Amino acid sequence: MNYISGGVCAPKGFIASGISCGIRKTGKKDLALIVSQKTASTVGVYTKNLVKGAPILVTQQHIANGYARAIIANSGNANTCNDNGIEIAEEMCELVEKHTGIYAGDVVVASTGVIGQKLSIAPISCGMSTLVMELGNNSDDAATAIMTTDTVKKEVALEFYLGGKLVKMGAIAKGSGMIHPDMATMLVFVTTDAAITPEMLQKALDYCILDTFNMISVDRDTSTNDTMIVMANGMAENETICSEGEAFYAFKAALFELSLNLSRAIAKDGEGATKLLECRVSGAKSNSDARLVAKSVICSPLFKCAMFGADANWGRVLCAIGYAGADVDVGKVAVGFKSDAGEILVCKKGGGIEFSEEKAKEVLSCSDIIIDISLGDGDASATAFGCDLTYDYVKINGDYRS
Amino acid sequence: MNYISGGVCAPKGFIASGISCGIRKTGKKDLALIVSQKTASTVGVYTKNLVKGAPILVTQQHIANGYARAIIANSGNANTCNDNGIEIAEEMCELVEKHTGIYAGDVVVASTGVIGQKLSIAPISCGMSTLVMELGNNSDDAATAIMTTDTVKKEVALEFYLGGKLVKMGAIAKGSGMIHPDMATMLVFVTTDAAITPEMLQKALDYCILDTFNMISVDRDTSTNDTMIVMANGMAENETICSEGEAFYAFKAALFELSLNLSRAIAKDGEGATKLLECRVSGAKSNSDARLVAKSVICSPLFKCAMFGADANWGRVLCAIGYAGADVDVGKVAVGFKSDAGEILVCKKGGGIEFSEEKAKEVLSCSDIIIDISLGDGDASATAFGCDLTYDYVKINGDYRS
Repeated sequence: MNYISGGVCAPKGFIASGISCGIRKTGKKDLALIVSQKTASTVGVYTKNLVKGAPILVTQQHIANGYARAIIANSGNANTCNDNGIEIAEEMCELVEKHTGIYAGDVVVASTGVIGQKLSIAPISCGMSTLVMELGNNSDDAATAIMTTDTVKKEVALEFYLGGKLVKMGAIAKGSGMIHPDMATMLVFVTTDAAITPEMLQKALDYCILDTFNMISVDRDTSTNDTMIVMANGMAENETICSEGEAFYAFKAALFELSLNLSRAIAKDGEGATKLLECRVSGAKSNSDARLVAKSVICSPLFKCAMFGADANWGRVLCAIGYAGADVDVGKVAVGFKSDAGEILVCKKGGGIEFSEEKAKEVLSCSDIIIDISLGDGDASATAFGCDLTYDYVKINGDYRS
Repeated sequence: MNYISGGVCAPKGFIASGISCGIRKTGKKDLALIVSQKTASTVGVYTKNLVKGAPILVTQQHIANGYARAIIANSGNANTCNDNGIEIAEEMCELVEKHTGIYAGDVVVASTGVIGQKLSIAPISCGMSTLVMELGNNSDDAATAIMTTDTVKKEVALEFYLGGKLVKMGAIAKGSGMIHPDMATMLVFVTTDAAITPEMLQKALDYCILDTFNMISVDRDTSTNDTMIVMANGMAENETICSEGEAFYAFKAALFELSLNLSRAIAKDGEGATKLLECRVSGAKSNSDARLVAKSVICSPLFKCAMFGADANWGRVLCAIGYAGADVDVGKVAVGFKSDAGEILVCKKGGGIEFSEEKAKEVLSCSDIIIDISLGDGDASATAFGCDLTYDYVKINGDYRS
């Protein structure tokens, strides 16, 4: 499996574009389109928030049959909690049909941005011909167009072999605040030229998110618009994957790798973040206990602040383990910190040990921190991804709408 | 029921003191003692965090019989996650016995501060004679001595009648960070001269915390040392409450009022907070649905930041309602904001309505904000108390240990 360039346009038969159509007043790109040359097996996972963005409801209906050909997405407005949300989302798909000939029922639609403000169709309608004209090898532009408070564009692609055929997979994602996915994350669009049935594609996706997107958190706020979509158009001409087996496992491994890469990128670019926190839990009684503990630690605001301050305040780690709701014997817990500057053990058997505060400060002053937790009580493990809590998180969210 | 002065020393037969013994290097008071002239019915509620402070384990053992005579408490160190924690907590009780003659097994002990650093008995031992000498009408000093990052002292007292006898009840509390109580809160010590059996006292306490201390959150971090203790020494000479009935209800109402008062005070003095947020949910299908929704909203970091910025970003309220885990029909939800500057409705039937942003800014610029949520789906209600998320929260917790 090799990383390659090209993002969502790396796989055969996918083109994309991203423009500024004026939904945002700042001139930042705000409208993206991804088109597949052939109809693609298409599946998704979505937020479990009861408040769901209108685009999710429309997308679910459009890909109920397992197929689609295009994705249209905007930033700057979530089109959520509006009485005309469904109507606008449908209109976006119809605009795609009008300008490309792709049946509106084969279009995935997604929106991200402020909740509860009406989304005007006017700028989208006006921008549509440019958006379609720009279609090409422009994954970059599409990735930029879906960014909100993201500071870096999230785009990734890789290639691997399925039964002797070279297969490519690419993705773009956005996500910075309101990140605490529950079966999905903000917006992730994956394209691949692999041939795979919608059923097996859904199976692969459901497996992959458990230990990737569902293990990240920026602020414990589960978004209303979380959507991850995977489109597989079959143009790599591998034998269609329609059951478990070697090819399915290889495909799943590629999707997992790509999801993990993007999960890290989203956590690292959390609103205001200066550090990526990766909490690795081992020695748990079960995977679900390991996941609960890992996620509890990276969610603790107190611990996140301590990491911002490069303070080895491991008592806050113990505290977060204690309220995680997992089956843990506190007296067996060990905690260490790791980074490019080295590693240091700070807690054994649930209690403090002597350690050099100076060395700890050095380890915690790096930008990628691993929190290593051994529960000493089994052989299950899990990893969660988060970020520190900083002044800038407060600044960004103290006045997001204006 | 009238509010009076005197704190924990308001009820007959209670004296208190608070000194600086040197656990903290800053010279701030750090050791408190409360003594009852007579043995008192004594009950408590404690954190549900699996990681429990050693003082909690000792206290639970000492009041297992339902009675106690004194409380000793320190700030500056939580005496938690230390291998000699139990020993130190017992020694603190023995020091009380040595200097006052009160049997160590009748002493409640509590600690608050940094987790995972050994608590030295030396400064406590040295300060003990002064602490005992200072015993008197000094609830003030005791309240100050248990403060950590609190910016204001929490002390309250009230009087009411039980069967014609004037009864008094007083309390001190601390709590500012790591506040997300689960059956209790940081430290709350209540004294009363009411006569009541331990069984009925526990019953009253369990009832009161549900809608008071269990409904506050500063940062969703459930502390390892949460403890609330109530001591009732019977010196008001009312007929001992030993069953439900008019006297019990009157007692319960007083304890509830006092708990509500302190809950508000703790939320308002949340670390870095500039505003008290009171989320009132009505029209819920059940009390538990109402509680889930109210607590979810005041816990949302995004909403808390918006309140700091006086931004009427009601979409974040809807989002937090959506992931609360409550049985809610989103299409029936209405949201309004209230303060001394007036009130404003911002959302009806789950969607946005026209409102004056200027007026909203005015309403949200006050220091006490009520978020009024009507679920329109039943007649249950609940209120939760929290605070905004500010730069100072990050500052305080970026380097708490040093």
